[in-house]
Amino acid sequence: MNEFNYRKEGFKEYLTFSKKKDFLLESEKNFGPITLCFETYGKLNEDKSNCILITHALTGDSHPARHAPEDTEGWWEDFVGADKIFDTNKYFIICSNILGGCSGSTGPSSINPETGKAYGITFPIVTIKDMVNAQKKILDYFNINHLLAVVGGSMGGLQALQWAVSYPDFIDGVIDLASPLNLSTESIGINHIMRRAIITDPNWNKGDYYQAAVPFNGLSIARMIAMLTYQTKDLMNKKFGRKTRSNIIDFYQGFDAEFEIDSYLNYQGSKLVNRFDANTYLYITRAMDLFDLKREYGSYEAALRRIKSKFLLASISSDTLFHIGELRKSRDILSLSGVNLEYHEVQSNCGHDSFLLEPGKYEEFLKEFLDSIKSNWNNADYNAGSL
Amino acid sequence: MNEFNYRKEGFKEYLTFSKKKDFLLESEKNFGPITLCFETYGKLNEDKSNCILITHALTGDSHPARHAPEDTEGWWEDFVGADKIFDTNKYFIICSNILGGCSGSTGPSSINPETGKAYGITFPIVTIKDMVNAQKKILDYFNINHLLAVVGGSMGGLQALQWAVSYPDFIDGVIDLASPLNLSTESIGINHIMRRAIITDPNWNKGDYYQAAVPFNGLSIARMIAMLTYQTKDLMNKKFGRKTRSNIIDFYQGFDAEFEIDSYLNYQGSKLVNRFDANTYLYITRAMDLFDLKREYGSYEAALRRIKSKFLLASISSDTLFHIGELRKSRDILSLSGVNLEYHEVQSNCGHDSFLLEPGKYEEFLKEFLDSIKSNWNNADYNAGSL
Repeated sequence: MNEFNYRKEGFKEYLTFSKKKDFLLESEKNFGPITLCFETYGKLNEDKSNCILITHALTGDSHPARHAPEDTEGWWEDFVGADKIFDTNKYFIICSNILGGCSGSTGPSSINPETGKAYGITFPIVTIKDMVNAQKKILDYFNINHLLAVVGGSMGGLQALQWAVSYPDFIDGVIDLASPLNLSTESIGINHIMRRAIITDPNWNKGDYYQAAVPFNGLSIARMIAMLTYQTKDLMNKKFGRKTRSNIIDFYQGFDAEFEIDSYLNYQGSKLVNRFDANTYLYITRAMDLFDLKREYGSYEAALRRIKSKFLLASISSDTLFHIGELRKSRDILSLSGVNLEYHEVQSNCGHDSFLLEPGKYEEFLKEFLDSIKSNWNNADYNAGSL
Repeated sequence: MNEFNYRKEGFKEYLTFSKKKDFLLESEKNFGPITLCFETYGKLNEDKSNCILITHALTGDSHPARHAPEDTEGWWEDFVGADKIFDTNKYFIICSNILGGCSGSTGPSSINPETGKAYGITFPIVTIKDMVNAQKKILDYFNINHLLAVVGGSMGGLQALQWAVSYPDFIDGVIDLASPLNLSTESIGINHIMRRAIITDPNWNKGDYYQAAVPFNGLSIARMIAMLTYQTKDLMNKKFGRKTRSNIIDFYQGFDAEFEIDSYLNYQGSKLVNRFDANTYLYITRAMDLFDLKREYGSYEAALRRIKSKFLLASISSDTLFHIGELRKSRDILSLSGVNLEYHEVQSNCGHDSFLLEPGKYEEFLKEFLDSIKSNWNNADYNAGSL
């Protein structure tokens, strides 16, 4: 196993592989070395039958939850932990920052060992499949040859779907929250506009800004655009309405943020810039656009017919980014392709962000789903083929 | 009437007024001189009872329709003309570019006579009410003291609404297509992001770019954002789907437009930059945000109770910018305020742009509405109070 270098710093673990530049990307380029940053929760049981892989969304990272009370808050805190949906008393949970990311895994902001400089846009275009193949290396390292479940929301759902298709014998249950089979025209358009905002920021400097000012304006505008798609009109009306931060007379002074929604958006924009790399934003939104199982398998049906795991798809009634209509279409195609599908429509006013904010609406059916696949696993010959 | 200077060039007419800087803005600043560019269609009849004012939307101008076959296409070509809804055989139609605009009327790109330079951001903040008060001057100049109707869609609808409230005795019928009583939180947020895109473009240069390169990137990003709100997901899926302009292999090369939706958006962005001023975009979106009849009258009801004209409000079923829910709320408030209201819900798949694209869906009820107010006019004592 000298293919791997492993190290741990605090709760973060790092696995480095493909040191000989032999990680084959979907673009048929070879790439390496790759380091993935990941975190684990709970304990792997003796027969390694309790492992759940959590895949993260666009700006997520390897840290869905606290490891200890004093730890920083995770992005899925209410879903992951002792006695929570993804119960760390029962399950061994792995969550890795994706290939191309900027939170510990190799991405455009990483140093290219050949040049001693950040990759920037010399980083290769990566796809959802590449992310999944890289995650697989972590399981290889731990000699885990079966996953109880892969679960992800939004772009995490695309990864879960790719897992189900790429490694059909490897997984018992796949949970895709709020993610369709591919991005709609509108979503591709939104991603395009967000990238334009970044690329046209002079600080972007063709991706070479790591020694200078970052493209603050571009990335923060991209984030503002995204924030509006994660929520609903009604919720924003309720939260901010037409409230202003200044006297109406001040409105005649200029164009700065005076409505509360304006300053909220500004705040969210800046906040992301402080924790996220603009080039990674470009690469990952592009990976989402490109996600299309048809590309490799000729048709969706041909791709989805490969799936052997139970599949849970959940849509969100008020989702304006990945609309319920798209999710129903995905449900139909999954069903027609013979997938053992469980489909839920979560009634929510929170829009796309529901899967991050409303654990109560997911708890029952997710726990039941996990229990149902666990009992299958306990059925001795269920996994005979894959062991 | 030496307050006015009037000139005509081709089909465009120009009226200049407030030469002594005595046009009182809602901000309580005085401003002038103001030139409005307008166009007229049809003939004013003897008793001046057939005049319809058309108010334009965000990027509209004074040219809704051709004056002659060889003329350039107007923005409301299918609605305005001989035997069309706004029948130029019957009606005398006026359409003016708004105050703050960039298509012939005084706006930030106009030369400030005091400095000999373009106003840029020294142009005062203008409101929808200011636009309406300026339009009124055109009618004053023609000694037209009564309008058969004011009609506008989107931001034009806001102007129509302001007309109804500001000049209740002046108008018989008001037609507001697809515009709510005020902008939702989300719409304010979208306008804010679009302005950020412009303002953070270094070429914007604090609004002083008239001797240099214009803020192409900022304005085109703003336009791309707007374009997505004017259409529907379904329509974009149908038109562009996931179609690509290049071989999939090229996707691994970079971040440029390869999906058809991307290049469509790029094209729409550039196209607007070629005909529209970025500072005007800032001023007008701000005017939309600020539109709030409550400001002057204390409450919506107090404002709307002033309305004496018949009022037609039409919503568009698939409108994602000014959502049908907002329009229904506006309908309810108008009704509760005692407005003589006619409300229509246009069933459409075209989204907000329906009011520009689908004359057939508006023709019957608009013609009937116009006929009904015309017959009121013919009733001799109907206008006694205002003549």
